[in-house]
Amino acid sequence: MKPTVQIEYCPQCGWLLRAAWMAQELLTTFRDELYGVTLHPSETTGRFTVSVGDAILWDRKQEGRFPEPKELKQRLRDQIAPDKKLGHSDR
Amino acid sequence: MKPTVQIEYCPQCGWLLRAAWMAQELLTTFRDELYGVTLHPSETTGRFTVSVGDAILWDRKQEGRFPEPKELKQRLRDQIAPDKKLGHSDR
Repeated sequence: MKPTVQIEYCPQCGWLLRAAWMAQELLTTFRDELYGVTLHPSETTGRFTVSVGDAILWDRKQEGRFPEPKELKQRLRDQIAPDKKLGHSDR
Repeated sequence: MKPTVQIEYCPQCGWLLRAAWMAQELLTTFRDELYGVTLHPSETTGRFTVSVGDAILWDRKQEGRFPEPKELKQRLRDQIAPDKKLGHSDR
């Protein structure tokens, strides 16, 4: 079974659009490696967390900011497809 | 545990954008009723299927076309929140 990424976002904060954008970025780059991406509205305000299985790829509270797509892609690649080349997103 | 909607789409057909749009429509309307929406790239070409648990809400092959958001919302409402009013999407 391929891995599923989960993006937990704060709906009251208006972060659905950003979460959906990130989902599309990941699904475009990892189309063959992922089972899918789940968009999950958080019950806790201010949350924006991206995870795959037990691994947290990004936690806005910890990092102090939102991720750029390229940061997420690098971290996801390292978790699920370490040999995959990311082209421009590797620089 | 709240239900999760799955949208299975054909990536080769270029249907990711449509699938992500539908996900956002459902998450906007059913923010409190859903655990989330999973976007799942299909391995079978031509597929566009929306399901919640075992219930298939829409299968493009069967219906012969894509759903309008309002059709999906009505069917999802009937499955998970039959008393919910959908406003304009009920007409």
